[in-house]
Amino acid sequence: MTEFLETLSGIVGENGLLTGEDVKARGLNFMGLGAREAKAIIRPRTTEEVSEILKACYAAGQSVVTLGGLTGLVQGTDSTADDIVLSLERMRGIGEIDTLGKTMIVEAGAPLQTVQEAAAEQGLMFALDLGARGSCTIGGNISTNAGGNQVIRYGMMREQVLGLEAVLADGTIITSMNTLLKNNTGYDLKHLFIGAEGTLGIVTRAVLRLHPKPKSANTALAVVADFDKLTQFFTFAGAELGAHMVSFEVMWQDHYELIAVNSGRHQAPLPGGSAYYIVIEQQGAHPERDGENFAEMLGKALENGLVEDVVLAQSEAQAQGIWDIREDIEGLFMNLMPGFVYDVSLPIKDMETYTKTLKTEVQKRWGEQAKVIIFGHLGDCNLHIIISVGDGSDKTRSAANDLVYGPLQALGGSVSAEHGIGLEKKPYLHLSRSPQELAMMKTLRQTLDPKGILNPGKVF
Amino acid sequence: MTEFLETLSGIVGENGLLTGEDVKARGLNFMGLGAREAKAIIRPRTTEEVSEILKACYAAGQSVVTLGGLTGLVQGTDSTADDIVLSLERMRGIGEIDTLGKTMIVEAGAPLQTVQEAAAEQGLMFALDLGARGSCTIGGNISTNAGGNQVIRYGMMREQVLGLEAVLADGTIITSMNTLLKNNTGYDLKHLFIGAEGTLGIVTRAVLRLHPKPKSANTALAVVADFDKLTQFFTFAGAELGAHMVSFEVMWQDHYELIAVNSGRHQAPLPGGSAYYIVIEQQGAHPERDGENFAEMLGKALENGLVEDVVLAQSEAQAQGIWDIREDIEGLFMNLMPGFVYDVSLPIKDMETYTKTLKTEVQKRWGEQAKVIIFGHLGDCNLHIIISVGDGSDKTRSAANDLVYGPLQALGGSVSAEHGIGLEKKPYLHLSRSPQELAMMKTLRQTLDPKGILNPGKVF
Repeated sequence: MTEFLETLSGIVGENGLLTGEDVKARGLNFMGLGAREAKAIIRPRTTEEVSEILKACYAAGQSVVTLGGLTGLVQGTDSTADDIVLSLERMRGIGEIDTLGKTMIVEAGAPLQTVQEAAAEQGLMFALDLGARGSCTIGGNISTNAGGNQVIRYGMMREQVLGLEAVLADGTIITSMNTLLKNNTGYDLKHLFIGAEGTLGIVTRAVLRLHPKPKSANTALAVVADFDKLTQFFTFAGAELGAHMVSFEVMWQDHYELIAVNSGRHQAPLPGGSAYYIVIEQQGAHPERDGENFAEMLGKALENGLVEDVVLAQSEAQAQGIWDIREDIEGLFMNLMPGFVYDVSLPIKDMETYTKTLKTEVQKRWGEQAKVIIFGHLGDCNLHIIISVGDGSDKTRSAANDLVYGPLQALGGSVSAEHGIGLEKKPYLHLSRSPQELAMMKTLRQTLDPKGILNPGKVF
Repeated sequence: MTEFLETLSGIVGENGLLTGEDVKARGLNFMGLGAREAKAIIRPRTTEEVSEILKACYAAGQSVVTLGGLTGLVQGTDSTADDIVLSLERMRGIGEIDTLGKTMIVEAGAPLQTVQEAAAEQGLMFALDLGARGSCTIGGNISTNAGGNQVIRYGMMREQVLGLEAVLADGTIITSMNTLLKNNTGYDLKHLFIGAEGTLGIVTRAVLRLHPKPKSANTALAVVADFDKLTQFFTFAGAELGAHMVSFEVMWQDHYELIAVNSGRHQAPLPGGSAYYIVIEQQGAHPERDGENFAEMLGKALENGLVEDVVLAQSEAQAQGIWDIREDIEGLFMNLMPGFVYDVSLPIKDMETYTKTLKTEVQKRWGEQAKVIIFGHLGDCNLHIIISVGDGSDKTRSAANDLVYGPLQALGGSVSAEHGIGLEKKPYLHLSRSPQELAMMKTLRQTLDPKGILNPGKVF
């Protein structure tokens, strides 16, 4: 072990530093593709230890890659043999829960699901939810500004964070553990660390905002005949359900037919053959009245001809069955690999033209067999797209990327709605951000981490 | 006119630059206290003109104070004879409203009420609301991260801004006019300008988030006997009303009795003599069901002994009557001047001890006649306090400040919940922010405005 690693080891105590085979045994990502490389993996137990580690690394000009739950999708936590990897896996504690102020203090390594459960035990709810809940960590959720299925109502991770503690590249601890809904005392520094993918500081703790636990939930699957009807139904449902609407998810026909009808993995609640399949969910505080209101809204939408057909889940199991179709990422991977996965956003009004053009262009280039599968959080302007043309080469990926990302710039769209930039989307960042914005980002990074030791090469 | 002013005048055209008596005729603040001083008031019409102005000022090391609607409360837009004052009064345009994506593009000088009305005309709602709505501007709301009466449900101004355009000190235009609910492409730069009180850039345009317009509103005035009951009622109402609860405002006994009972300015809906008076409001999407749910919640709270008495508004006029009591700032000023006005926040669980101690200390120092009037947005942890001891001298103010602000540090409280820091609260900022946070703020300001020309001397 080098003298430098001895120094680091001294900070974190026995078992705190992993090297050699212990590093290789760790995955590079949740898909198990590629091997983890690093000089060492260091596992601090406290913010002070993170600070000591960064002081040592900063003095040595040593790069540091921070790991959460390894569920990222954009190579945001890849490391090389030259990096020190800092894992927050020994900082998973849940601290004080203030049931009156509805706040929870957590360490950054706490898994999302643990936080959700701790809130629920107190009759409260932590409002961020996404498929990787069992593995992803609060620190990772913060650093990537995670999104998920309830963003229309509750916002992204950014809106769930009242305060946080972060360690700057030079080891300075910024403790900004605000617990208050209103606090206008100077710059709100936490926003610099949220969504920065570990490039401006390492988040070690956070104060999370909680909400009253909903007492009712209603879920339905609805189908509409065309995009005009889809948008009319979105507006209608939003007006009729108001603040109770938490999800408005849409599966384009090809997606629904592949997963729900043809994969053999699900019982299809409705037959294929329609243009759009919508998962709509509301949460409320009065089961009976909320249920009536939800059913009445759907009834009116049928009467008015907005929706062609609808299945209203009569039980939690039925609701879960609908969500299982929407969230069956494994089914998509099994049927579409090799394929290319995208996470874009664009104004809803432009989605019909954008998606139709994309399918036309893909099939023009790779033939009628090429698949363009589209689904996502329509209410959040966010579509996930998988393009599968039977060839996973880098050259083909690049051509597909151009078709997906190219039109976004003119539409004011985003090349990454919720996944972040990491390494994977760096070449396309300029399509969503102006040269002036990118220059300002670089200035901030240079200011807070002049030696560039934090997650080097990521984002830009 | 100096050569420099000629240059500025050339940028903004005829009538764009005001000097001499035209400057003095402008107020320093909405209270009409003090005279406006400045080398000139410059009134650009476009972002490009703002950029040209700042380029000229930056080159000359000329300080610039930006004005919105002049409704600030912390001397955040005070200027001296050495400053150029930049007013956004000629940039009041409402741009595109996307009813599907629920967004609105506005210029920074647009008054809040104009924005609210433009949204309402499209069947939508802009969710920020506060007493100064007729005068305050969107740019001012952004720069101070304005709060108001619906923050529990909709968040502060920060949560209403999807994108913005700002001009840096050196004239660089940062156009970050995102319209998307989800957009994780690099750092979210807008947060640097929100709540920065014009010290990091001048906001010229914004993309605002809109919501479906509520179809129902219910308002009640409830009284509780003690603080335990108050917090129990807050938790109970939150659970029963869920996302429909938009306001939970509390008037301490002395406040209610002064304004509602004794001022002769209002018809008191309930007699004095109780400890706390609560204005609770919900908004929903179904008048009949929402009304039933609200009445049922209040009925249960009465049955359970949480509240002693309640008046449920039966009309908009009655609801307005209740709000008029809560919002009667003029009545407070007429009865309590000379007095000192505060805007603090602290954890709800600490409010009882904090407020009782404050009253005791004030009366110990200034006698039984001294008044401590307390009211505010309890659901947001935010209390407004007026201390009136019959003497408005700076020395007395300073002593009162110490009593109000002193205990906040240990409680993790805030010396400014929604008003900002400006000049007035600078001496107390350190009670709410750590030396490391303050150092980081200074670093950011130094980085983005190395010559310190933007709103110099404000915040820190």
